[in-house]
Amino acid sequence: MPTHPQSYTDLCKLLREAATLGSVSALVSWDQETYMPKGGSAARAEQASILAGIVHERKTSKKIGNLIAACEANASLMADPRHGANVREMRRDYDLVTKLPGELVQELAKVGSQAQDVWKEARQKSDFKMFQPWLDRMMALTRRKAECYGVPKGGELYDALLDEYEPNITAREIDSIFTPLRKELTTLVAEVAQATKGTKASKGAKAKKPVKIDTRCLTEKVDPAIQHEFGQIVLRAMHFDLDAGRLDVTTHPFCSGIAPGDTRLTTRYRDEKFTDALYGTMHEGGHGLYEQGLPKALGTNTLFGTPLADAISLGIHESQSRMWENFVGRSREFWKFALPIIQKKFGKSFKQYDVEDFFRATNTVTPSLIRVEADEGTYNMHVMIRFEIERALLAGDLKTKDLPGVWNAKYQDYLGVKVPDDRRGCLQDVHWSFGLIGYFPTYTLGNLYAAQFWETINAKTPARGAAPSIKDLPKKIAKGEMGELREWLRKNIHQHGRQHGAGKLCKKITGKPLEAAPLLRHLRGKASEVYGIK
Amino acid sequence: MPTHPQSYTDLCKLLREAATLGSVSALVSWDQETYMPKGGSAARAEQASILAGIVHERKTSKKIGNLIAACEANASLMADPRHGANVREMRRDYDLVTKLPGELVQELAKVGSQAQDVWKEARQKSDFKMFQPWLDRMMALTRRKAECYGVPKGGELYDALLDEYEPNITAREIDSIFTPLRKELTTLVAEVAQATKGTKASKGAKAKKPVKIDTRCLTEKVDPAIQHEFGQIVLRAMHFDLDAGRLDVTTHPFCSGIAPGDTRLTTRYRDEKFTDALYGTMHEGGHGLYEQGLPKALGTNTLFGTPLADAISLGIHESQSRMWENFVGRSREFWKFALPIIQKKFGKSFKQYDVEDFFRATNTVTPSLIRVEADEGTYNMHVMIRFEIERALLAGDLKTKDLPGVWNAKYQDYLGVKVPDDRRGCLQDVHWSFGLIGYFPTYTLGNLYAAQFWETINAKTPARGAAPSIKDLPKKIAKGEMGELREWLRKNIHQHGRQHGAGKLCKKITGKPLEAAPLLRHLRGKASEVYGIK
Repeated sequence: MPTHPQSYTDLCKLLREAATLGSVSALVSWDQETYMPKGGSAARAEQASILAGIVHERKTSKKIGNLIAACEANASLMADPRHGANVREMRRDYDLVTKLPGELVQELAKVGSQAQDVWKEARQKSDFKMFQPWLDRMMALTRRKAECYGVPKGGELYDALLDEYEPNITAREIDSIFTPLRKELTTLVAEVAQATKGTKASKGAKAKKPVKIDTRCLTEKVDPAIQHEFGQIVLRAMHFDLDAGRLDVTTHPFCSGIAPGDTRLTTRYRDEKFTDALYGTMHEGGHGLYEQGLPKALGTNTLFGTPLADAISLGIHESQSRMWENFVGRSREFWKFALPIIQKKFGKSFKQYDVEDFFRATNTVTPSLIRVEADEGTYNMHVMIRFEIERALLAGDLKTKDLPGVWNAKYQDYLGVKVPDDRRGCLQDVHWSFGLIGYFPTYTLGNLYAAQFWETINAKTPARGAAPSIKDLPKKIAKGEMGELREWLRKNIHQHGRQHGAGKLCKKITGKPLEAAPLLRHLRGKASEVYGIK
Repeated sequence: MPTHPQSYTDLCKLLREAATLGSVSALVSWDQETYMPKGGSAARAEQASILAGIVHERKTSKKIGNLIAACEANASLMADPRHGANVREMRRDYDLVTKLPGELVQELAKVGSQAQDVWKEARQKSDFKMFQPWLDRMMALTRRKAECYGVPKGGELYDALLDEYEPNITAREIDSIFTPLRKELTTLVAEVAQATKGTKASKGAKAKKPVKIDTRCLTEKVDPAIQHEFGQIVLRAMHFDLDAGRLDVTTHPFCSGIAPGDTRLTTRYRDEKFTDALYGTMHEGGHGLYEQGLPKALGTNTLFGTPLADAISLGIHESQSRMWENFVGRSREFWKFALPIIQKKFGKSFKQYDVEDFFRATNTVTPSLIRVEADEGTYNMHVMIRFEIERALLAGDLKTKDLPGVWNAKYQDYLGVKVPDDRRGCLQDVHWSFGLIGYFPTYTLGNLYAAQFWETINAKTPARGAAPSIKDLPKKIAKGEMGELREWLRKNIHQHGRQHGAGKLCKKITGKPLEAAPLLRHLRGKASEVYGIK
């Protein structure tokens, strides 16, 4: 590699310093959720705020703007596939962060914080009317934010918001993938419902007994300390580096890629459902492997703080967590690996269950009301409902007063469930209360990317232009050998940072643009194994 | 209280912001010792360094200097006993922090870090010659530091260093207290040694059997988890607020008053000596109570970040930790309180011991080689040896090449022990390797202050001009009622922050300047109870 121009070196240094301060912010947040005594909360708010101010000041400095311009003027630098991409992404970040006037950022933070408090109370009381004026205010502020970002030609306001979480994709493109997904899933959910009821004999068809899945193996009690030990065994099997990370307990599980060499995961333990913590750990572990795989190690010419050492998008990040949680963790092969450990560590009551018990119990499809408790089969329905609604709200096609009615109708249509109250309906998620709009679809994009990558990884013969597959991966997983999968992800996804956008990366890996079919094949395949539907 | 002038309000705000950033530094250090995965150390060094730079920049800003000058020009503000003192102490801090040229600060940090690495290896190899040139370098740099601080008229270089840790005291003053202390303690140690040997009958005196203290009660095994639970019971009895603090495990115990409402203690557990962790916890708990008692709560007109919300000196801080560790924790009454809890929680093997067993076992006097393992009776000897040596080294009266010889001779003279090698001799402490000179005497000053305060607290009739005593404190401690002691400390010491200097505070509380007699009475009193000497 030739030496870089001074402007690029200086720019990387300034960004690294800002990122170092950002990493302190991340640690401060992590501590707040894990070990901070409650008496520390007032001081913590001041710490977080002063750090956020310093980081913002550094990221929006004129100096950075000038250095980016100087780099852009350097043709040979820009022609470098990696460092040229790095500068282009720096420009993207800088424009995004400098486009919002300080006054709007403060207003969003202030009103968002108040609205979140109102939301909490409204949810508790199941009182949508109480929350509605605050949702209106947040929608208005979010529209202003989208306008500041700027609507791409021929696009809509929602696209401008998406750009913050999932760059280079439009609402229309998402819709074109979500529509077939929703239709097929609606059918699948109905078929599963039918199978669980059974059918009487009719002309030309025999009677079918109702399919009942025994899930008792999931509700046996397991001591949290033993669950924690098991979680760490699984993380080690995933090749998550526990010398460069940790696993702790919080109310809401998360992964924080705090700093180079320091990636922290959290989960939560319930005595009576160990798979909650297990899948929480595998999910966050998937995010954690992405963070550990990004090329951000410190040292001479470190990329830390620059886009080449940063994750592509929320959707790609989510693809990593979902792959480990659902494609690995809910597979028959995973249970082949895990069962002997469970039977050894969890006690006698587990001796009565076999791999099929766990495979079936962790792959039930049951329409439900709450997104965060939904199973793999129905989860995306919850996301798509939110995407449709927030898109319509932002465009003004839906008034907030009509939100509960529309919400409930969609739950009835897509999932066949009746929403009994707004607490379990349109008030269940925190996102909208503080202006997180354009975020929900990334959850399902994650599932879609994961499914499409997974087909490539497991292809008998690699598709044209696609990355090579891993031979006999299921057999390897059954033996607890998951290192090759981690290497594949690292080589094909993690190590590139933001050199490629999500769409390009998807094509580079799978040979095709993102589509609904792989995820549908995956979900139908499981439903057919578990419920015997075709 | 009248409204403050704008310059004072602005000044307090700037100092609070610097302190908030300082509190982030403190959290980052705490995390490094407790939960940081080892892979995070390179990033942690960068985080710590960038934060230190920002805090230093803020604390030395011209703006602060100008505001202090503006406050000093305001006669009515300066006449206020509290806020006037606050400004005077701000001036003191500002002068201290701006007196060292940046180049010297960096050199001290850099050479200190290298010298510490060399010291580690030299200690391991017990090779003083290896360390000697680095000690010479650190001494030279420290002399330069002292010269920058400035030597007070008629004083010596050492006084300038003391000012950083124990303001307003001189080496000569310390010497005038340490000299009688050392003489009396030398005698006491010899008498105890005699008692443990016993004496034959002689003219006019009967034979005395050797006094043997049975310390088996301290070496019974106790599970660390149970020790941790016990430590928290003791902290609660001390009225340490665990909702505004924590107790964790580290290699070296410490207390960090991280931020308002957030004071964190650490200790370490050994299966086979539970009093190590217990006294570590009580010691750090004493520091922690001081931190929790300082008036630094956030809110309108908060004092956080200003001297009025800051600890007076290391000696006064240490007096708080030593009081709880030694005067409370090693008392017969404490064991009356603790024994039933121990017998309930620690298991059957503890049923055979009584209060006297624990009282005697935790108050043995045994000359030894290592300061951090020394008992209460001999600890100060270790400190005084270091004070004498570092004072002579700094003044140039002692050459580093002669250090081991002088060290060993003093151990022989004062404690009657033979130093077998430098690892267990002059290489045992880390302090000098990174320039911590003038720090050691604060340990013994802490013991002296604690003893003098303790006599006032327990006086049958309060001395003239002294603070009122607590009625029947020993009886209260025996019942686990320690709230009144905490209130006394809070009222007489903690709440004043740095309004008074250590010397003034001592006179205000005890009616007398600091002297050796109270500590000597305390130590002789215990030795007489345990060893039967007069």
